[in-house]
Amino acid sequence: MRMTTIFAAAALAVLAAPAFAQDLVAGAAQVRDRALTDGTAWAVAESLTTEVGPRMTGSPAMERGRDWAVAKFRELGFTNVRVERFTTPAWFRGPESAEVVGPAPHKLHILGLGNSASTPKGGLTAEIALFRSYQELLDQPEGSLKGKIAVVTQRMPRTQDGSSYGFVNAQRTQGPREAARRGAVGYLVRSLSTDDTRLPHTGGAQAAGIPAAALSPPDAELLENLARRGAVRVKLDMQSRSDPKAPAYNIVGEIRGTERPDEVIVLGGHLDSWDPGTGAVDDAAGIAITTAAAKLAASAGPLKRTIRVVMWGSEEQGGSSGAYLAANRAEVPKMIVAGESDSGAGRVYSIALPAGSRSHPAMKAFEAALVPLKVVVRREAPQSGGADIAGLISAGTPFVDFNQDMSRYFDLHHAADDTLDKIDPAELSQNVAVWAAFLYTVANSDIDFRQLAKEAK
Amino acid sequence: MRMTTIFAAAALAVLAAPAFAQDLVAGAAQVRDRALTDGTAWAVAESLTTEVGPRMTGSPAMERGRDWAVAKFRELGFTNVRVERFTTPAWFRGPESAEVVGPAPHKLHILGLGNSASTPKGGLTAEIALFRSYQELLDQPEGSLKGKIAVVTQRMPRTQDGSSYGFVNAQRTQGPREAARRGAVGYLVRSLSTDDTRLPHTGGAQAAGIPAAALSPPDAELLENLARRGAVRVKLDMQSRSDPKAPAYNIVGEIRGTERPDEVIVLGGHLDSWDPGTGAVDDAAGIAITTAAAKLAASAGPLKRTIRVVMWGSEEQGGSSGAYLAANRAEVPKMIVAGESDSGAGRVYSIALPAGSRSHPAMKAFEAALVPLKVVVRREAPQSGGADIAGLISAGTPFVDFNQDMSRYFDLHHAADDTLDKIDPAELSQNVAVWAAFLYTVANSDIDFRQLAKEAK
Repeated sequence: MRMTTIFAAAALAVLAAPAFAQDLVAGAAQVRDRALTDGTAWAVAESLTTEVGPRMTGSPAMERGRDWAVAKFRELGFTNVRVERFTTPAWFRGPESAEVVGPAPHKLHILGLGNSASTPKGGLTAEIALFRSYQELLDQPEGSLKGKIAVVTQRMPRTQDGSSYGFVNAQRTQGPREAARRGAVGYLVRSLSTDDTRLPHTGGAQAAGIPAAALSPPDAELLENLARRGAVRVKLDMQSRSDPKAPAYNIVGEIRGTERPDEVIVLGGHLDSWDPGTGAVDDAAGIAITTAAAKLAASAGPLKRTIRVVMWGSEEQGGSSGAYLAANRAEVPKMIVAGESDSGAGRVYSIALPAGSRSHPAMKAFEAALVPLKVVVRREAPQSGGADIAGLISAGTPFVDFNQDMSRYFDLHHAADDTLDKIDPAELSQNVAVWAAFLYTVANSDIDFRQLAKEAK
Repeated sequence: MRMTTIFAAAALAVLAAPAFAQDLVAGAAQVRDRALTDGTAWAVAESLTTEVGPRMTGSPAMERGRDWAVAKFRELGFTNVRVERFTTPAWFRGPESAEVVGPAPHKLHILGLGNSASTPKGGLTAEIALFRSYQELLDQPEGSLKGKIAVVTQRMPRTQDGSSYGFVNAQRTQGPREAARRGAVGYLVRSLSTDDTRLPHTGGAQAAGIPAAALSPPDAELLENLARRGAVRVKLDMQSRSDPKAPAYNIVGEIRGTERPDEVIVLGGHLDSWDPGTGAVDDAAGIAITTAAAKLAASAGPLKRTIRVVMWGSEEQGGSSGAYLAANRAEVPKMIVAGESDSGAGRVYSIALPAGSRSHPAMKAFEAALVPLKVVVRREAPQSGGADIAGLISAGTPFVDFNQDMSRYFDLHHAADDTLDKIDPAELSQNVAVWAAFLYTVANSDIDFRQLAKEAK
């Protein structure tokens, strides 16, 4: 019933739109439909994951990724292609292994967390202190874990909107520091995974001065079962290194507007990835979606405003958002709107538009284009954009948030399983269609999100 | 409609059964219902996978497995517990790695196949010759793959009865030899997996004198995508060793019959496992199901015939079936029936009984007990039992085949993902209930499967 109401409202909006918006409606529908059968996004994702593969900030692979990005922008007809270099701290994985020494020997499947310290050469062996929830760890007094390897095995539930990640990720990001504060000599955490495969999921953590790694879900459960029998001793051998000033790159390509080229729509995904997979859903997908969408938005004729696609260069280890703002701060007042695609390749099911903009003819045209894509427009303004546009947002840039179905995202995220085969080409195309319709309507209208937000107050 | 007919037939069978069979019906129902809420099988599977873990033939872990088996039989009240030692050829994995050297570097996720040769020290690097079907490889003339690493990327479809394994497993078992015959210096095969995780699935293969390994499904697809671009060079570095006479053990426990103890029902699972997982569905589950079923079959009062559970010691690398027959050949004429549980922990959905036995009152009683378990009895006699009873079958022992739902089995089989968490306790219990009802009815009747088969001819 609810869907019927929404469809009727959308149809009404189209009928009620003024003549100039009817052009927007027709154009948005055209680029949308073209996007649904266009292979550009798939080709971009396939190319990046196959020809470059995993690409950690500061790694040789990222140098290849940068060159790939420049070449791909040019190949697709983008102009003003440029590389904005910056430096940022980066962590590099070395050899890693973990095993249960007793009561029964077991190899453990682990992946070191970003900013993990190395163990002493030859490893360290210690008894574990296992906590089935992160809160249990936090409840331990300072010094109580002296000499122990702290283990947190709290599970992560599957959610369509990905919100569970926000509730459990402190066990990865802050857990090492909380464990070290209580005297632990090492930290193991059940992966922030919604899957049950024997693959650990890495990710960033606060530097804590102790080795810290993620366990695959079955390994976390094995430790639980062993711990029920008594003392468990684990050997960790982890090496890594850090570079406080690793080179990194935001790579930019544009489709210049013909009437108001200095008014810029900024969107993109991030080029860097964690190392175990090939960075397909995180975030070759976002790179592919936004690049293809920009190209398709321009496929129905010249655009009035400029569309700028940014392949941000260090989302996972941080730095690209601040660097992008620093390099482009003077331009912010002319940035019409910003957005990032960094939630995988699942289909968009709802979107949030800047406050006060929903009834503007351009957004009404956009909303009309969304109906066959099964996307609804939320009543509230977006709470956050992607990590790479946080700098732009803090400087006052209006932004959108397109909510993707993340039901399977955390099966794959930061794990060896993040590979091309996990991207569904039809779902990828639906994302491109949503973004292309949005870019088309904004680039061909005079919508002023800042002004609309002011009026809405 | 079909189900209704089957249910009606089963009900009719119960009504028509003679008085002594009514006791069998009631007893079978009793042990069945007890099995459904009994925790023995789960506890056995948890114990084996946690306290022993993976257990390759000839490994120190298998020595621990043998001791575990003896202790577990005794703990559960089995008698005549004994270890039948034999020797068999065994292969042992050493360090393994594989990577794409060009056109773009990629680490590959591989697992050496049983009987794989080692590479030269430091590895070997060669161009790949990629075939998307096994037949394509077979179509190549002798000598045509000289100096190449042959790669077969044929996919395996998911089937409920596991039959697809039979259609594709030649690419693993015979592929290395076929590749070597054509001059290949190495062999990589897409894992016989129905899943899409980055975990390769190992397994036995014919010795071929070249290194041979399984690729994870995403890695096989990566090689396909790279190969479309031109020449692909891969470096393999694999070490392993073999022992032509590794020690192995069939471990036996009995519940002795009180009236005709020399008439023996033989069933079991295999204790050995491949090394990447903890051998949970393959085959701690079978060990757990058959051990628990024997115990439950005896829980409603003394049994007339003997139930013997065998934990066969070398199914994966071969040897336990022949060794068991050799050590027990004199007893075969008194072996009433044999069965093996080696298809994971999925629920039983159909069973095949020896020819001519289905209308015997004991089997009618068994069939009546199956109705609430949603198991149907097939019209045809079983075509094959498990690998470990092949020897007994060849010597004329009647046998049964209980078909389990294997829809997920080949997601896990021979892979690191074969861990305890993949066993569903309710499905495990349903297996125990089926076996317990079968054991109860056979052990408490005078059914003679050999005679019934003769009469059926």
